[in-house]
Amino acid sequence: MKARRETRPVLVGDVAVGGGAPISVQSMTTTNTGDPAETLAQIARLHHAGCEIVRVAIPRADVLAGFETICQESPIPVIADIHFDHRLAIEAAKRGAAKLRINPGNIGSSERVDAVIEAAGEAGIPIRIGVNAGSMADEYRDMDWPLAEKLTASAVAFCEHFESRGFSDIVVSAKASSVNATIDAYRALADQVPYPLHIGVTEAGTALSGTVKSAVGLGTLLVGGIGDTLRVSLTADPVEEVRVGWEILGSLDIRRRSPELVSCPTCGRCEVDLIGIAKEVEERLRERRTPIKVAVMGCIVNGPGEAREADIGIAGGKGIGLLFAKGQPLRKVPESEIVEALMSEIDRLESAAD
Amino acid sequence: MKARRETRPVLVGDVAVGGGAPISVQSMTTTNTGDPAETLAQIARLHHAGCEIVRVAIPRADVLAGFETICQESPIPVIADIHFDHRLAIEAAKRGAAKLRINPGNIGSSERVDAVIEAAGEAGIPIRIGVNAGSMADEYRDMDWPLAEKLTASAVAFCEHFESRGFSDIVVSAKASSVNATIDAYRALADQVPYPLHIGVTEAGTALSGTVKSAVGLGTLLVGGIGDTLRVSLTADPVEEVRVGWEILGSLDIRRRSPELVSCPTCGRCEVDLIGIAKEVEERLRERRTPIKVAVMGCIVNGPGEAREADIGIAGGKGIGLLFAKGQPLRKVPESEIVEALMSEIDRLESAAD
Repeated sequence: MKARRETRPVLVGDVAVGGGAPISVQSMTTTNTGDPAETLAQIARLHHAGCEIVRVAIPRADVLAGFETICQESPIPVIADIHFDHRLAIEAAKRGAAKLRINPGNIGSSERVDAVIEAAGEAGIPIRIGVNAGSMADEYRDMDWPLAEKLTASAVAFCEHFESRGFSDIVVSAKASSVNATIDAYRALADQVPYPLHIGVTEAGTALSGTVKSAVGLGTLLVGGIGDTLRVSLTADPVEEVRVGWEILGSLDIRRRSPELVSCPTCGRCEVDLIGIAKEVEERLRERRTPIKVAVMGCIVNGPGEAREADIGIAGGKGIGLLFAKGQPLRKVPESEIVEALMSEIDRLESAAD
Repeated sequence: MKARRETRPVLVGDVAVGGGAPISVQSMTTTNTGDPAETLAQIARLHHAGCEIVRVAIPRADVLAGFETICQESPIPVIADIHFDHRLAIEAAKRGAAKLRINPGNIGSSERVDAVIEAAGEAGIPIRIGVNAGSMADEYRDMDWPLAEKLTASAVAFCEHFESRGFSDIVVSAKASSVNATIDAYRALADQVPYPLHIGVTEAGTALSGTVKSAVGLGTLLVGGIGDTLRVSLTADPVEEVRVGWEILGSLDIRRRSPELVSCPTCGRCEVDLIGIAKEVEERLRERRTPIKVAVMGCIVNGPGEAREADIGIAGGKGIGLLFAKGQPLRKVPESEIVEALMSEIDRLESAAD
């Protein structure tokens, strides 16, 4: 992995973004922002899953009262997402938004963008310049350039406009639904602006294809040292977005929220219900916070050896499991007791770590 | 994306690997190889999902008769996966394997490895030198080097040994369960050997974490032009491995098997059951082979614009969907008819393409 790119720091509520801060995981609510009870319930679920910053849509003025309540009661900073109408952005800044996300390309005239900049400055909050392949300003959209170059040029031009107004409390994004275009745009942005980058692939798709597109796109960027906060977009429960976000960070050993689980793909050698065991262990590890490595292996011949680096693990045999720690066998347990036995060994490790 | 690395070509049955051939998708059976009916049924499911080469485990001599039947009847080339016992590899070569996969580090003496090389030469089949973090030869495992360097050095040394025996019909892999180590190992291998690379992250984990780790690792390598055939390892039905493999290739526009689906993550603006609609459309597109782009968008304001490049799509409204093609609205349909209306427009596009 390349060393992480240096950026200016930005504060979103009490969460630092860029400037060396941990790469934060975001999501966006799918509820009606005008219904603060429902939206706060979803935010609570997102927070529990590890969401550190949440974005809500402000599609109309009649949701602003709800938005204000959400900002007051949310356990994590709330970003207002505004398209088209600059007055909604100005109102959101007054009512407690921790950050505004606009795409200056669809806000209209430069005067309207300036009014949003002024409102953010007065509220002391940052703005994300959120350029998106689907909502670029007309002058870029109609240009005969590769998509990534249009996204980058558009984002850089907006940064320069903001700077010319004395505003540099900026986070930048340039998302496309094409992974290649997204990677190219962020690589170029990383060279051209000093601001933290919010990375994501837009309209990535369903749980399966959206997870793959996001992991390929964000993973490639992160390996290259690019990215300060991330959002995975899925056509699914947003809790899944948060889980995938953490999985991406964990896959590269950047940040972990739960123990690491390695499990083998099973093969003709496996004689226990490994898929069921691994799923149950994954589910139960999700609520744990100790940074250990757990292995669930199908076969007693390769298992302990292949998972030598795991703190604790099981290897399946014929209707039994062999518990092992750091590659050393502990004891055999019947298949039906594998998960419980593994979890109590994990309890023991966790108390020892306290 | 970088241009794809040039390699020697290798033939696995009738599937070319390397030398500019399309990047092929592999999987591995989880059934008992000694039961050819069960294993062939799983291979048929894998083949239907797009698996192009399949690997089966040969853990003991008593599965060899079954293996022979599988090789005769499989619709796709069959690779024999052998650990520890070189005699199993020699027998597999005689009984119809399209390729052998061994990790020379656990086959034992150099004479035993040579006997396998000789058998492959006689059968006219390639060998994958499948180095794996969990089963490295002792002399490498105990070295105080970074894991990736041990994997690479071990794989390169085996390649040199094979070459010294006049055998160069080689595919190489060097997998770890660490994504970072996997990326580093393959990048180094790509510089050091002229052979096609089989890429994969080993013991990647469950459907969720294994998908993310594989997508991050393989995606990063593919963006760098590295990889000639791939296998996603999941603790799940191997059909999922094939689907994720294709999703990874599709995400980078390298190869596609089905139409591309883009769908938005829904937000406070969405007034239809977008998750349900997108899932059903995804399921039904899986059986289609026309290379079109389909969009399922939550909101009628942004939808057609954001999915301007889609051949066909829907944007949700209040209990209705707006059908559009290339960003132009076609007609409105009630929510309950959205999927059917979209699929019949796709039928129309497909007949037009015929």
